Amino acid sequence: MTDCQGDGEGAKSPMELYERLTEQGNKVRSLKTAKAEKAEIDTAIQLLLKLKVDYKQMTGQDYKAGSPPSENSVAPDNGPAADGADDDDTVDPWNVSTTNAKGVDYDKLIVRFGSSKVDKELVDRIEKVCGQKPHRFLRRGIFFSHRDMHQVLDAYEKHKSFYLYTGRGPSSEAMHVGHLIPFIFTKWLQDVFDIPLVIQLTDDEKYLWKDLTLEECNRFAVENAKDIIACGFDVNKTFIFSDLDYMGASPEFYRNVVKIQKCVTFNQVKGIFGFTDSDCIGKISFPAIQAAPSFSSSFPQIFRGRKDIQCLIPCAIDQDPYFRMTRDVAPRIGYTKPALLHSTFFPALQGAQTKMSASDANTSIFLTDTPKQIKNKINKHAFSGGKDTVEEHRKHGGNADVDVSFMYLTFFLEDDEQLEKIRQDYTSGALLTGELKKILTETLQPMIAAHQERRKQVTEDTVKQFMTPRPLNVNF
Amino acid sequence: MTDCQGDGEGAKSPMELYERLTEQGNKVRSLKTAKAEKAEIDTAIQLLLKLKVDYKQMTGQDYKAGSPPSENSVAPDNGPAADGADDDDTVDPWNVSTTNAKGVDYDKLIVRFGSSKVDKELVDRIEKVCGQKPHRFLRRGIFFSHRDMHQVLDAYEKHKSFYLYTGRGPSSEAMHVGHLIPFIFTKWLQDVFDIPLVIQLTDDEKYLWKDLTLEECNRFAVENAKDIIACGFDVNKTFIFSDLDYMGASPEFYRNVVKIQKCVTFNQVKGIFGFTDSDCIGKISFPAIQAAPSFSSSFPQIFRGRKDIQCLIPCAIDQDPYFRMTRDVAPRIGYTKPALLHSTFFPALQGAQTKMSASDANTSIFLTDTPKQIKNKINKHAFSGGKDTVEEHRKHGGNADVDVSFMYLTFFLEDDEQLEKIRQDYTSGALLTGELKKILTETLQPMIAAHQERRKQVTEDTVKQFMTPRPLNVNF
Repeated sequence: MTDCQGDGEGAKSPMELYERLTEQGNKVRSLKTAKAEKAEIDTAIQLLLKLKVDYKQMTGQDYKAGSPPSENSVAPDNGPAADGADDDDTVDPWNVSTTNAKGVDYDKLIVRFGSSKVDKELVDRIEKVCGQKPHRFLRRGIFFSHRDMHQVLDAYEKHKSFYLYTGRGPSSEAMHVGHLIPFIFTKWLQDVFDIPLVIQLTDDEKYLWKDLTLEECNRFAVENAKDIIACGFDVNKTFIFSDLDYMGASPEFYRNVVKIQKCVTFNQVKGIFGFTDSDCIGKISFPAIQAAPSFSSSFPQIFRGRKDIQCLIPCAIDQDPYFRMTRDVAPRIGYTKPALLHSTFFPALQGAQTKMSASDANTSIFLTDTPKQIKNKINKHAFSGGKDTVEEHRKHGGNADVDVSFMYLTFFLEDDEQLEKIRQDYTSGALLTGELKKILTETLQPMIAAHQERRKQVTEDTVKQFMTPRPLNVNF
Repeated sequence: MTDCQGDGEGAKSPMELYERLTEQGNKVRSLKTAKAEKAEIDTAIQLLLKLKVDYKQMTGQDYKAGSPPSENSVAPDNGPAADGADDDDTVDPWNVSTTNAKGVDYDKLIVRFGSSKVDKELVDRIEKVCGQKPHRFLRRGIFFSHRDMHQVLDAYEKHKSFYLYTGRGPSSEAMHVGHLIPFIFTKWLQDVFDIPLVIQLTDDEKYLWKDLTLEECNRFAVENAKDIIACGFDVNKTFIFSDLDYMGASPEFYRNVVKIQKCVTFNQVKGIFGFTDSDCIGKISFPAIQAAPSFSSSFPQIFRGRKDIQCLIPCAIDQDPYFRMTRDVAPRIGYTKPALLHSTFFPALQGAQTKMSASDANTSIFLTDTPKQIKNKINKHAFSGGKDTVEEHRKHGGNADVDVSFMYLTFFLEDDEQLEKIRQDYTSGALLTGELKKILTETLQPMIAAHQERRKQVTEDTVKQFMTPRPLNVNF
């Protein structure tokens, strides 16, 4: 008997009980759907209620479909579909959507996922601990949610360091400015805390999910690595890896993958990720591969086999389901739970209702766009919060909250005062939509040109250097 | 859309249609269980029948639950449980049981699995092609079933060679004589055909299925490798690998695993292996890892990246489900289907109703047993087909068909004439049970002593040599 089977008589762990509850819930639903006899449905519901009481007793939490037991008092789940809450936002690793022009309701997401808000106290504390002005992404609530950041800072103050882990799914050669968000922020964290970083390129995931060959996905990984390197990471402190390559280069990585896979049942990934019986077994087992880099023992070349180095994962909030799962598994295999810093989503040019698409060139500014393309895309496609006529705009002012050009400036314009002035002028009507778009254009054009210049300097040799498993220049 | 999703409107492949049928069958069953309204059940059944007609049209085969479409006209399945046939044998990778003292009904198994009988014509042909007297396992129907052996021989006659793949799940340090069957036979095949051999030790599988640590499973793999090496394999033509080590040493192996995982859905492994929603995701995706060595591109160091070398897998018939799945996937990823040679099961000392257990020392003769232990186990535990008294035995004779000592001799006594004489004498009553047991004891004692002697010669260095990925001395 392994610890991941749930077929015993008495449930021994919260997870077992959770699985039974999930099964019983499915049973009740299917009986109702099939219009079964009332007596039969009632019996099934009674057992369901009894299991819920047991669950509350064992975990101190209420059972919630799609939310495996965790240490958090607010149990995470995977979006409104899972619990039927009346909420229009959907957020999971493959779907992000909202009907609100201002974007996803992030405060609700914090409650639903059971994470913590990045509040002023935390931002001030980060400033104190690293001795640097907080990054604009922290000052402006772009990294808005976290798990265990205070614990990371407590340890850091006691000279117990940590490492960073972030990643990207290389589904095409093209990256857009939104893809840079986690990397810009991660570079800042690396610099101010002076810590190592691992970057996972999930080419295996893209092969499993998309209609692409292994060779294409692996090539996209290398091409994406060039754009990532162009963000300015320190080669002496950064290891970038493709799953397809690193899995075959590190027995310790595979060992951790198998350890995680033993602790997670199909019921759980069904609840967390919405997998179905028609999904391929590669997808079903993939979450363990995204989980494994959260544990320092996956990188013996960097951490010399040490299993206790804390990991901090900066990522967009849609990736959180992977790490909720990871945090659930960690103590069961003797590892430290990774801490997280979650970012909001970068809006599409057409508005905040959707995430950008790497496959539609007009939904975003790409890292390969020329100054002219940037200007045209912003003028033509950037959703405006301004009024229909200049006259009306001067009179009533624009709505910065739904204006994509203004949103983009909150991501990329460094000067807080200038940004606030733009907001006020736009809201009052002093600043016209065309003028706002011009400011964004003039902010992005040099930024992207500089990126392109740095990317040109990235040779195949540099890529190879970053992507070779090797000791890093770190002190642990 | 990947090729492993089945949510499209019109089914494009037999596999998609098969999956829809499976789903529809489940639906009908659950409606019936839930005592749904007759009209609803009838509608579901009508769709089921329509899908069955489509399936027959597309594949030329009848749909059979638990039997994914294959090229064989007799569709394989996984035992009587899958189709409700009234048959007492259960045969899958984790369970082999029969209520018949003579053992599993292998002729029925051939029909059920859709394989072919190793008949006299095939045995004669093997003799002709390799120019050697067929091994006693072939002469005596111990390797009784096959897939595509004629194709392998056709190609070999045209100087297109093949390679061998077999394996073992290292669940403990102890191996018994039954575990040697595939290795004894594989060594013979390697010698007479002069071909390379890869041996997979599924330490990851044992970790996932048993209550063992990764370190234990990996250590058992190395210990088992010593017993395997002691069978006399040619180090220049044999590569032995542990999954936990080789996965992390060969990007090509992982690439093939992912390719296979993309082609197999949870529905399929549920049908083939009986996995449930409570099984861990490691078990669910494992079949791809046992499948991958069937493809020569998993071993670039041996086959220099060639993808077209035919694989022949000698194994016990309980492993066939893995390779039915493998053969279904092969053409979809551009690979050659592996051929197979299936052996019967080696009976436990207590009788042919069960497979031996490595965890119960009295169910078998272990490779570490002393001559005295061998003698005592045979005398005390070997199930006898003899009569209760000498008088009765002399008068009525014994039953060799259910006598474990006689069965063991069919595996290990080389001389056909001597074996036949023993059978006749035992059946007539001329040979007593004690005398038969003595013959077996005297056959096994020197055989095991010689094995122990050879195993002693196996150094850590030798193991390392066999287990290092390297070019082999082969011509392709």
